[in-house]
Order: sequence, then C-alpha cells, then structure tokens
Amino acid sequence: MNAAGIIVEYNPFHNGHLYHINETKRLSNADAIVAVMSGSFLQRGEPAVTDKWTRTKMALQHGVDVVVELPYAFSTQKAEIFAIGAIEILHHLKCQSFCFGSENGQIEPFFQSVDQLSKKKEQLAALVRLFMKEGISYPSAQTKARNSIFQKDPLPLDLSKPNNILGFHYMQANDILGSPLNPLTVLRKGAGFHDAEASGSIASATAIRQRLLETSISIDDVMPPLSAAGLKKRSLHSWESYWPLLRYRLLSLQPEQLASIYEVEEGIGPRLIQAALKCDSFAAFMQRVKTKRYTWTRLQRMMTHILTDTDKESMRQAERVSFIRLLGMTENGRAYIRSIKKEMLVPLVSRTASASDLLALDIKAARVFASAPNLPKDYADSLLEQEYSTPPLLL
Amino acid sequence: MNAAGIIVEYNPFHNGHLYHINETKRLSNADAIVAVMSGSFLQRGEPAVTDKWTRTKMALQHGVDVVVELPYAFSTQKAEIFAIGAIEILHHLKCQSFCFGSENGQIEPFFQSVDQLSKKKEQLAALVRLFMKEGISYPSAQTKARNSIFQKDPLPLDLSKPNNILGFHYMQANDILGSPLNPLTVLRKGAGFHDAEASGSIASATAIRQRLLETSISIDDVMPPLSAAGLKKRSLHSWESYWPLLRYRLLSLQPEQLASIYEVEEGIGPRLIQAALKCDSFAAFMQRVKTKRYTWTRLQRMMTHILTDTDKESMRQAERVSFIRLLGMTENGRAYIRSIKKEMLVPLVSRTASASDLLALDIKAARVFASAPNLPKDYADSLLEQEYSTPPLLL
Repeated sequence: MNAAGIIVEYNPFHNGHLYHINETKRLSNADAIVAVMSGSFLQRGEPAVTDKWTRTKMALQHGVDVVVELPYAFSTQKAEIFAIGAIEILHHLKCQSFCFGSENGQIEPFFQSVDQLSKKKEQLAALVRLFMKEGISYPSAQTKARNSIFQKDPLPLDLSKPNNILGFHYMQANDILGSPLNPLTVLRKGAGFHDAEASGSIASATAIRQRLLETSISIDDVMPPLSAAGLKKRSLHSWESYWPLLRYRLLSLQPEQLASIYEVEEGIGPRLIQAALKCDSFAAFMQRVKTKRYTWTRLQRMMTHILTDTDKESMRQAERVSFIRLLGMTENGRAYIRSIKKEMLVPLVSRTASASDLLALDIKAARVFASAPNLPKDYADSLLEQEYSTPPLLL
Repeated sequence: MNAAGIIVEYNPFHNGHLYHINETKRLSNADAIVAVMSGSFLQRGEPAVTDKWTRTKMALQHGVDVVVELPYAFSTQKAEIFAIGAIEILHHLKCQSFCFGSENGQIEPFFQSVDQLSKKKEQLAALVRLFMKEGISYPSAQTKARNSIFQKDPLPLDLSKPNNILGFHYMQANDILGSPLNPLTVLRKGAGFHDAEASGSIASATAIRQRLLETSISIDDVMPPLSAAGLKKRSLHSWESYWPLLRYRLLSLQPEQLASIYEVEEGIGPRLIQAALKCDSFAAFMQRVKTKRYTWTRLQRMMTHILTDTDKESMRQAERVSFIRLLGMTENGRAYIRSIKKEMLVPLVSRTASASDLLALDIKAARVFASAPNLPKDYADSLLEQEYSTPPLLL
C-alpha cells in the first residue's frame, strides 16, 4: 500500500481541511492518508479547542485513515522543530509523499527557495543574530535577514505568508532527512490562516474558534456536519480556561525557578510574575507582557511550558522521535499499519499505560489539559481516563 | 519595658485565646504581650481560615501588643521545628517570659519531663528509628518509645495531650537556646484542642472552623464580638478551596520532580499522582493516600509544600531565623518595639518589598494563599496587594 502524509491540528476540523484531504488523495494517488496531528497543546502555544479524541474522530470521519499524535516536544515548537518532528514521523510511517496547503500552491518555488536559502545558511544565521541583538523578534529578524540577502534576486516564494512558511519548513525538514518523501502542495482556498472572517464555505480555524468561544454565530456553514456536531460548547478549551492555573503557577514560582522552564529566558521571570499579580485574565496578562522582542506566539509557547512545568532538560531529552502514538484509524488505515508495522524503527504505541516513560511529557500535557477548572467534571474525568487507557479509535 | 511572649495561630481567635492572653498578663506581670503568629499556612499543614491581617487585627483588639509572623519555614513544621522558630523569635524580641496553654496547667512537670527526656535522648532516638522501620508514624513511634523507656518511672506529664506536647517542645526549644525565657503555663479551659463540640463559651478552633465552613450554626457564643465580626463568610479558606490547584499541580509533576519537594519521600509520588487522578475533593484524596505510616497532619504538610512548590533546598536555607516580620502593633506595642529595636540581632521587616529575598518563601506562600479559585476577586486582589506593600497594622 502507498500512503500520503499530512500534518494537521484540526483546531477544529473545517471545510478547508476536507478540501485539503481530498486534494491530497487526488494529487498523491495514495491508498491511505496518514495524519500526524498535534495533541493537547498546539504550535501557536495554545490548548486545542477540543480534545485529541474528538479531533481524531473528525479526521477519520472525513477521509483520513490513520491519525498519530505529534508529541508535545514538537507540537508546541517554532516551525523548524515542529516540521522536523512531523516529517520524521511521516517518514517512520513509510509515507511516500506528503502534502501541505500553501498560499503559493505550486511546489517548484518551495524547492527553489529551500535550495537558495541553504546556500546562504551561515550568512543568514549571522544576520538573524545581529538583528535580534537590536531587540526584535526571531521571525522579524528572519524576514529582515532574508530581505537583505535576497534584495536583488528575490526568492520565488512569499515567506511572509504563514502557510508558505510552514510548507517551507516541511520541505527543509524533508531535505535534512535526505528527501525520503515526495512533497506536494495544495493551493489554500478561501480565508487566510489568521483571517477572522469567513469567505464562502471556508473559514480559517481562527475564525471558527472565535465564533465558538466568543459569539453565538453558528459554525454549521463552515464545518462539515459531523465535525460541527462533535464540538460540544460546554467542553471547549481556551487559554482563559487555564488562566487561574497559570496565574497560580506564576505566583508560586521564584524567578530563578522560572528560568529552568523551556523557552523562558533569564530576565523575563520578574516581568511575568509582576504581570500575573496585576492581571485577571489571560488576554490582559498577554497584553502586559508583550514586547517587540517577544511575539505573541512565542509568549504563548512559553506560557504553555510554564503551565505544564516542562523544563529545558526534559525537552532536550525528547528532541528525537522515539515513539509514535496511534490515536485512531479506519479499517483501511488498519490494513496500512499492518503492512508497515514490522519495518518500523520506533515503537507504535496504542496505550500510554504501556509506554508511560516514553510518553511522560504527553501524558502530563494531557493531564494539565484536563485540569481547567471550568470543565464539566464528567468530561474532565473522561479525558483523564481516556488518556491513560483508551486504545486507538477505530472507525 | 518587660514583655511576655505567646505563640499563636488564631485560626480563628476565640474566647479561649482571650483567656490565654489575660492569664499571660496576670502571671507574667508584663508591660506588653508579644505574639508570634503563623502566617498563611499552619502547623497542621492547612491554610489559615482567614488571612494574617484579619487575624492580626483580632489579636490586637484583644490584648496583644505586638504581632510578628512565624515564617513559613517554621509555621508548617512538626512541633520540634515549629517550637524552635517561635521561641527563637520571642528571644530575639527580648521577651522575658513566654506562656502557653496546656492540659496539665502546671509548669513543674514540663521542667521535669524535659530534663528526664534529655537524659535519655540517644536511647529514645534509637527506639523511634526502630519503631518507624516497622511502618508506623513518627508521633506513634515517639509515644511507643517513651512508654517503653519510662515504663517503670512514668513522666509527670501526659504527652498524649496535644497542648502538653506543644508546650513540652517550647520548653525543650528554650532549653536548647540556654533558657533565656521564663516559661509559664495556663490550664486550658473548656474544649480540647481537637474537640468538635463547644463547652460553655469556649470551643476549640477546630470546632469553630467546622461551624464556619460546614454549617450555618452561629459562632457568636464562642468568639468575642469583634473577632466574630471580622470573619467574612465569603472569604474563608479551607483545603477544599485549593483542591483544583493542588490537583493540577500533582498532575503536572512527574514522580521524580515531586521527590524534590520538602517532606515528600521517595516512593510516595506515584501514589499521590494516582490518587489525584481518581479523586475530586481534598477530603477524598486524603482518605485515599492516608496510611499507618503517614499521619493526616504529616500528609497535609506535604500537600502544603507541594501546593507552594517549596523544595528541600529552600527549606534548608531557611532553617535559621534571619528576619522578623512585623504584622501589627498597638501604641503600647510600638513603644515596646522602640525600646528594643536597637539591640535586635536580626532585621525587623515592616514591608516585604524591602526584604523580598529574605521573605521569598513567605511571599510565595501568601500569593498561593490568595490564589484559591473560589475567593472573591476583590478580596484576593487585596491580599496580594497587602502582602507586598502594607505596613504593619496600627491599633
């Protein structure tokens, strides 16, 4: 059997995701679609709007055959590391191709850009360091460095677009691994990644989360019916749900303890603690701590690691893919897994109970995810229970 | 001026405490009463039912002249360490005597018991170690060891009574310091320490907390009017208030991280985490983790340190009295403080902002104390604000 991989968050699953799956099938001609999906906490440093089981079910109901979890050690990271983890997992799962949505829509410009940027790697890194010393954020420094190096001969890819950037990093990761996968891209239709407005039947996940969490506007027009039905209003997660816990955590830490947390830099500790003392919502807190140097996303990732008490050392230990956790599969997916299982180089884990050492960070993240004080008790209990002993979903 | 010291928790202040103050004045003939009072977390390993400012005011309104805080590093400890910190502070504050309530009511049996036990110190310690290896708790092992050594010639003091035990440890601490203070004791009237029933106008603090937290029975008959008026129902603290935070904390820790917390022994970590997964109240959790080896009080102290994230190393660093924090005073107390201040060997701190390094553990404890999710926002904010910048109360 021949499989195509996709890298997803499904936060939540919407019409644009359905289009991506169908286009992946068409372009790759694969027998099975394998999705590597972020678990409890996501790339932009926030809790998923709903739990991984609900999102796995959404995926399986709409054409994905196998869903595995992108471990916490990759899912909560900047694009470079996120991409390395995801592509490595798709490679371990013997995918022949992978397919991502992009604003560009053509694969050639990605190949060219990876190639051109790899030739200027050292020069670029030096410039980024220089610009960051001026106090700007890492993404801004990267843009500035690229613009300066490729001023006369611009890259064929607009790397100011969020999906182009992600796609670029997937391609780069594939390149680093020796290009085991054949890259494909699908033109993103409708709304942009961050757009708050829907366009036709496609809205960004950001827009859908906003509707869900802040308004009473229906989501039925922008999500497939089964996916919309799977989202229960009473059990939605947002950063505000975790604010009492994050605030307590910040207030119980001394600056030097904070400094051992992953992504927390020396010096920002007192600022975070002072802001926690003064603010009574996550939004107010973020407004207060944000500076030119720290992007919103970077701060959110930092807060994720503080919330889950993830220190630098445990992230260092998790920087290689050492297991793959199976969240769910269809009958077809099961046949695919059976066909590759013997050749796999890392264990495929079905129940956390059987591999709790390997999955320590992910188990912890899932437990913290279930600890938001505003969650209905039966839902929170079922999350804790599922995380520990549920076998993969079968659809 | 001549001062008498008392060691108090006032959790909350009741008629028995008033009697103790008046008897201390009568017996000591002192010009001023100095109270060293536990702050946010108490000797039995629980949050104070109300904040330290409310309890300081209660003390000043009923005859105490100076209230200082027993630091977290002593207030949350077993009797030996609690007593050392308290007596050392009274000594630093130049008290000539100290006076404690006891079931015995006579000072001579305390002197004799301290003397007799100190002669058998090594023998006793060896027996305690031996009994603890059989899996019983430290207090049970102590009782068993004492009974075995003094079988033929019983001690003149019943050390199964909680106030006799505390008093004994105060006397022992005074002895260790070279007996700088003259010990006095007052016979405890009415209800016993742990009794849930009131007897006449005196009820134990335990009974009063139970009435406050679990019933609608008035407390007016067992507390002085000003003290009863100071307790606002909406801002009472109990372990249940902190359960969502403690549970989250336990679920975000791995057993080896738990082992760095003060009083957490190797091996109990997984048991605590499993119980946190299964239970939805503090009471249910405690029932589940309690064993013959761990008394309820010892477990509560352990939970206090987990809640406040206090590790072994920071408690080690705080094992000597290195500052005294002034919480409040009357005009008379102010005169007394003025008369001794120049001779004091440790700094007398009025505002935490001016000594945040010294007071790190206490500031953290106060912040965690203010973080219970069920507290009214204005009350919680005022606690955080007060802790940082309020000067001592003046009455």
